[in-house]
Amino acid sequence: MKGNIVVGQSGGPTAVINSSVAGVYVAAKKLGVNKVYGMIHGIEGFLEDKLCLLDDYLGSAADVELLKRTPSAFLGSCRYKLPKALGNEATYEKIFQIMEKHDIGGFFYCGGNDSMDTIKMLSDYAAANGKSQLFIGVPKTVDNDLPITDHCPGYGSAAKYIATSMKELIRDNESFGAKKPTVTIVEIMGRHAGWLTAAAALSKGEDCSGPDAIYLPEVTFDLDAFLDKVKNLAATKSSVVIAVSEGISLADGRFVCELGSASDYVDAFGHKQLSGCAVILAGKIAEATGLKTRAIEFSTLQRSATHIASLTDINEAFQVGHDAVVAANEGKTGMMITLDRNGDDPYQCGTSAYDIHAIANVERPLPKEWITEDGCGINDGYIRYARPLIMGELQPLFVNGVPCHLVR
Amino acid sequence: MKGNIVVGQSGGPTAVINSSVAGVYVAAKKLGVNKVYGMIHGIEGFLEDKLCLLDDYLGSAADVELLKRTPSAFLGSCRYKLPKALGNEATYEKIFQIMEKHDIGGFFYCGGNDSMDTIKMLSDYAAANGKSQLFIGVPKTVDNDLPITDHCPGYGSAAKYIATSMKELIRDNESFGAKKPTVTIVEIMGRHAGWLTAAAALSKGEDCSGPDAIYLPEVTFDLDAFLDKVKNLAATKSSVVIAVSEGISLADGRFVCELGSASDYVDAFGHKQLSGCAVILAGKIAEATGLKTRAIEFSTLQRSATHIASLTDINEAFQVGHDAVVAANEGKTGMMITLDRNGDDPYQCGTSAYDIHAIANVERPLPKEWITEDGCGINDGYIRYARPLIMGELQPLFVNGVPCHLVR
Repeated sequence: MKGNIVVGQSGGPTAVINSSVAGVYVAAKKLGVNKVYGMIHGIEGFLEDKLCLLDDYLGSAADVELLKRTPSAFLGSCRYKLPKALGNEATYEKIFQIMEKHDIGGFFYCGGNDSMDTIKMLSDYAAANGKSQLFIGVPKTVDNDLPITDHCPGYGSAAKYIATSMKELIRDNESFGAKKPTVTIVEIMGRHAGWLTAAAALSKGEDCSGPDAIYLPEVTFDLDAFLDKVKNLAATKSSVVIAVSEGISLADGRFVCELGSASDYVDAFGHKQLSGCAVILAGKIAEATGLKTRAIEFSTLQRSATHIASLTDINEAFQVGHDAVVAANEGKTGMMITLDRNGDDPYQCGTSAYDIHAIANVERPLPKEWITEDGCGINDGYIRYARPLIMGELQPLFVNGVPCHLVR
Repeated sequence: MKGNIVVGQSGGPTAVINSSVAGVYVAAKKLGVNKVYGMIHGIEGFLEDKLCLLDDYLGSAADVELLKRTPSAFLGSCRYKLPKALGNEATYEKIFQIMEKHDIGGFFYCGGNDSMDTIKMLSDYAAANGKSQLFIGVPKTVDNDLPITDHCPGYGSAAKYIATSMKELIRDNESFGAKKPTVTIVEIMGRHAGWLTAAAALSKGEDCSGPDAIYLPEVTFDLDAFLDKVKNLAATKSSVVIAVSEGISLADGRFVCELGSASDYVDAFGHKQLSGCAVILAGKIAEATGLKTRAIEFSTLQRSATHIASLTDINEAFQVGHDAVVAANEGKTGMMITLDRNGDDPYQCGTSAYDIHAIANVERPLPKEWITEDGCGINDGYIRYARPLIMGELQPLFVNGVPCHLVR
């Protein structure tokens, strides 16, 4: 790897995506890289030559620590989808010109499926056109749906937030119900994969029964069966709390959220914006049972709550950023750093670099064997997998009573 | 104070209401009280003689510490409104019979306005009928709307959660907006008083500009002025985040949430259940501007997030519980323990016991002088008042990656 490097962040931010930037920076400095640039708002900003110099912000080890404790995209994110190279050569040439202008030899991109597609297309273009720059993907997604890697940085912290908040909401719901049960429906992110919703099961322990049911996008949603389930639960329990994925859909293919006044907004990657299925289901329950119901959505809180991030996740996010630079330094390109688990208990995990072509645009669903037979629960297979990912805490630096962040 | 004592929890729980129970318990044991009973689901359960013995759960100092770190009502809460004594003497006599049966000489009730009304009516009945039992109110409400007391235990922790989450959401929202601004509307609890919504302003600091506007129930809401404000903000900023109270209402008296499909549910105290004004306003903004908007509701998360409770609040909640027992031991009755501030910086606060008649059923609004002239902001007067209340943290006891709670 010659010259300087650049790092960018793309897609929905996470609680630990900045820890990956910290890892890129620290590794680069260890390897003697002169300048570490940051893309302002990912490839979208890069195309307009909007860069910053990370050296301006990370002057001390304390700054690096603060960056690791800062949620969301420090550099700014984007949802820009790079067009196919064929017919769009000018866009690609522009990217390489900007890299040459700043003597950038290594390009590191933190993101999920769509961002890995960017790495694939840029590295393919470089290979096809004799460019020497190196492109490495740094995995990041709360959705945990990248293939090959055991899990994705960002997931553990979102899961820890979900498990913690779910437990606190169950406690809150249990406060009432002396005479009549109260029902709370909690909506969790996850367009096609139930990874985040499954994390609600991590709230279960000696002091908490966990959610009473978990509805995942992997299982076809049956409204009548759902209402029967709630009625049966309410007949014996004073507190009913149910986790639902935003992406649950009916047998006819419609999303449950479409049963209400869902928005038709479609984002830049063509994904339909979902929200509101908890509100719809809470309404259906109230109608069918007359019970007091409440709908709660974790919304973007679940991806930005660095104040309760998982230390394992922060460290692994740092590691994949770090090892991306090490991989490029060894001449690798067109690869993503993967997390490779070596054991659950005690948990051990290493990294390697894997061909981006096997990763980009492939979505990994939650394994069916972790879903209980009745389709509305999660079994111990998942718990064994996910528990290590939420372990440990990194106390925020509190200033004036709120966590302090590093900002540009 | 003779004999045993009983403590109950009522109304919406908070992150620190259990710390008050811990305070009651510790003070009682220090003063040699034999048995400390807990009401299961407040006065509603007490009327059915549903009691537990706190000694069964608080055998060690570690148990007491764990109770302080447990959200929501450990004993169970209720929304039962005690009827007026006149014509309902049987209900009152039943309460005193149950107290006599268990040799209970002191009755401690943690709650807000409605719960203080219970203390008032019971102590009035005792005085009018020559009963010797003592009744002391322990203030608790995230709404912070009890009069006389400088602030209410529960408020500081809710405010710390709101400030922290608001800051993380602002960070998340700032991640995007490279081309077009994104708008997030955050809905915060507060039926009639803007105390909780004002706490959004505590997110502001060197590293955060805070919410761009704060809409309080104390100020009449004007939809056109609101949309103009958002348009003006979006014309110059790439990220717009606005805090709104669930209780904002129009000049004609309708709640903003009634502009949509709000529920008509009315709780046992006759309060209309509110929710959904953020969703309605986000829809109006999307309609008027075409900008990407998001609605987020903190819902019950804001009152149950003990994992980020304020240490000041936990300690003060403990103190008012403790001092309620001390007051009863001095023969006081028909009083509530108040928090009396002696200084902002450094913050100092003591307690005293105050006549319940001046407190029950009185709601304290957010002082008008803390609202900015344009009606959609909060000034430094509030910050000086509220900042000390969110200071300090008490690290949860994490077990398997999630906070551990004490349960019955």
